[in-house]
Amino acid sequence: MAKPLLHSFAQALGNFANGTDTPRDFLERCIAEIEAREPQVKAFTAMRLDAARKAADASTKRWHKGAPLSYIDGMPIGIKDVIETADMPTQMGSELYEGWAPGYDSASVHALREAGAIILGKTVTTEFAATRPGPTCNPYDHTRTPGGSSSGSAAGVGSGMISAGLGTQVVGSILRPASYCGAYGYKPSLGGINRGGSHDYMSQSVQGVIGASLADCWQVAIEIVQRTGGDPGHAGIMGPPLPPDADMPTTLAFLQTPGWDIAVSEAREALETALARLSDAGVVIISADDDADVARIEKLLPESLALTRRINAWESRWPLNTYVDKDKSKLSEGMVERLHEAEGMTVDEYRRDILRREEIRAAYASLSNKVESCITLSAPDIAPVGLASTGNPIFAVQGSLLGVPTLSLPLITLHGLPVGIQLLGFLDEDAALFAHAAAIEPAIGPIEVA
Amino acid sequence: MAKPLLHSFAQALGNFANGTDTPRDFLERCIAEIEAREPQVKAFTAMRLDAARKAADASTKRWHKGAPLSYIDGMPIGIKDVIETADMPTQMGSELYEGWAPGYDSASVHALREAGAIILGKTVTTEFAATRPGPTCNPYDHTRTPGGSSSGSAAGVGSGMISAGLGTQVVGSILRPASYCGAYGYKPSLGGINRGGSHDYMSQSVQGVIGASLADCWQVAIEIVQRTGGDPGHAGIMGPPLPPDADMPTTLAFLQTPGWDIAVSEAREALETALARLSDAGVVIISADDDADVARIEKLLPESLALTRRINAWESRWPLNTYVDKDKSKLSEGMVERLHEAEGMTVDEYRRDILRREEIRAAYASLSNKVESCITLSAPDIAPVGLASTGNPIFAVQGSLLGVPTLSLPLITLHGLPVGIQLLGFLDEDAALFAHAAAIEPAIGPIEVA
Repeated sequence: MAKPLLHSFAQALGNFANGTDTPRDFLERCIAEIEAREPQVKAFTAMRLDAARKAADASTKRWHKGAPLSYIDGMPIGIKDVIETADMPTQMGSELYEGWAPGYDSASVHALREAGAIILGKTVTTEFAATRPGPTCNPYDHTRTPGGSSSGSAAGVGSGMISAGLGTQVVGSILRPASYCGAYGYKPSLGGINRGGSHDYMSQSVQGVIGASLADCWQVAIEIVQRTGGDPGHAGIMGPPLPPDADMPTTLAFLQTPGWDIAVSEAREALETALARLSDAGVVIISADDDADVARIEKLLPESLALTRRINAWESRWPLNTYVDKDKSKLSEGMVERLHEAEGMTVDEYRRDILRREEIRAAYASLSNKVESCITLSAPDIAPVGLASTGNPIFAVQGSLLGVPTLSLPLITLHGLPVGIQLLGFLDEDAALFAHAAAIEPAIGPIEVA
Repeated sequence: MAKPLLHSFAQALGNFANGTDTPRDFLERCIAEIEAREPQVKAFTAMRLDAARKAADASTKRWHKGAPLSYIDGMPIGIKDVIETADMPTQMGSELYEGWAPGYDSASVHALREAGAIILGKTVTTEFAATRPGPTCNPYDHTRTPGGSSSGSAAGVGSGMISAGLGTQVVGSILRPASYCGAYGYKPSLGGINRGGSHDYMSQSVQGVIGASLADCWQVAIEIVQRTGGDPGHAGIMGPPLPPDADMPTTLAFLQTPGWDIAVSEAREALETALARLSDAGVVIISADDDADVARIEKLLPESLALTRRINAWESRWPLNTYVDKDKSKLSEGMVERLHEAEGMTVDEYRRDILRREEIRAAYASLSNKVESCITLSAPDIAPVGLASTGNPIFAVQGSLLGVPTLSLPLITLHGLPVGIQLLGFLDEDAALFAHAAAIEPAIGPIEVA
């Protein structure tokens, strides 16, 4: 099968406006990929192609009249199956919710519909967005994991079946699958997108976008936020109504977080190539080797995974205890173990953990006096072989713990399989991160290791 | 009908321990009030008396063995019907949710069951905890409102049918009905009780307790928090495992918030009597008349109601837009109007409103350098006649906007009907507020105006 191509809607917009392309034709190109690839990739849990075609025709008419509802009017989008939709079931990768249809849209899905986007289908999630995988395969190699927990959204975008998919991340659930599937991944600042009607309740959890380009990620996010905001009490993602203009950062911090030690040498060398190209472009790269502040942060970040897992365990006590009451046999062993871990914790221990998280966040925030963004890998390697695990979240978890915006850019290819380059920004500075990414992406360009 | 009496579980605990009373007998005394009063008061939307009796018998056995699960083991509790329960429907005062049974407990209800509390029934809420009243009447006078939106929990406690009821407050939904029904009302600090599985999504919204005594309010809240914490990312209510010991504050600020101007003269005189008694007890009372800092806060607080309503409107855009999609005819006019208001707002306007709220919160917080708590009325008058409105939230809304803990103590009686005295504390200082209240309550004592 041919190497998958990304289907960027943002890049097609000009042709809708000048009449040489239409949202309906765009959709049919996506459907052609679905017909060719979905039987193996298994990105979707539900799909509404007839409704999608009808919606694409309505969108086509709006573009013809010069009156699209937004810059994503007609964009085919997949929705991670922990996020509620009025017209399809929401099953959360769990037998407990098999066939469950709440009958209402989530805040983000409603906003997408208001903007004219086409809700093409629901995409596979691991069980309750945690660790037990669904059936999805990596679009580059069906023997490999697509990553998780936003498995279907990443595989759907990575295989050209949709332009964007909504995802959620609390550990590594957007950045990791985006890296493995050759898609762009965007985890917003904490509270950046309204999570109403999404079954991810944890304090580090955010809703985000896996897209076919940086522009697609920004556009989907900002159209949602304009219509429904961020989480209640949060400002939501702030920035321009179209993707921010490229703005090359003066100084970047290269973070050798715990993942760096276990990253394969080819991925490390590829990132070093990327850093050299940025240096050539005039960017100052600092690291723990030559900067005490970066070194201080790197001493704190190794706690991220264990701290995140304890915080998540306590915050999963409910609803896991109600799921066990309902039918324990329908939960994976991993979920039952997490509940046991939570039941062994006290609220005082949890308080210590969230205070520690605050300390690490404050230390990282102080770096913004010195650098404009941070850069590292998105994953330690290409997607591993096998579908029983969704891979290692070690590079993505720092951004989750910190609550800062992160992006994964699919710039590295090792033996034909993708690895992402990760950019980490500062809280509520999502637009600046996109501006940096838009400048950094062409400066690095593709890096292929045969 | 005889004047209703409160059924404090905390005051009965000693007798369970020494064997002269049992949770089953306690429950039967509550059920006697239910049989006598519920046909008129209409506090409940659903009730499970058989299951309650079974649970009370199990609790009785635990007390006999000297091994109760907690200090609320056997306490009969009502659950506001926006909070999910596994064994009863959750209907939110809305035809849209008629008969809806999610099948899982909320975080707080699960914690209550773990602690051995008896989930006696679901209590009436206004439509989606907003303004359209349910059928509940005031237990003191059936021609009057019980207040809202936690109407059934307040009327149930005020009429002695339950020892405590869970409520929620985003404007005045705990303090106001507690004041009207002669119950104790406790609105915790923002994030104080885990709202998982409760349909109140707004950024000022908190879950709280209406109880038959200060001790009942504290005990219910702290038993929940020990088992499920606060909202994800929040410390939750912090304090001792039993009600804090009385601690008389040195200095109190008397707040003449906007409600003071419209409060009836008898209520104002009663509060002035209360302040005189506290002065006699050695408490220094400061006010805007003699203190510039208090005056500065009082200049800001009149914005509270309009600011709260705008914030709530934006934050209700979802899910109201999905409700209208589903069946607009099943929503009240007030809800549809709120959606229209929200759709006329922009996310930038919302951002300005939440920033303004932050400014007011910071100004109030600075008062903690000068006073230990604030004091005012809970409502401008006794419950008004008629069931079409749940009354004026003008005294309660400040505490909601500020996010601070507030208490209503049923110390004033005007012509046989109750009015509460309100204490306002500082963020996350809930235990200190209870300690002050425990000292203030006997120092003021009952104030009756014939």
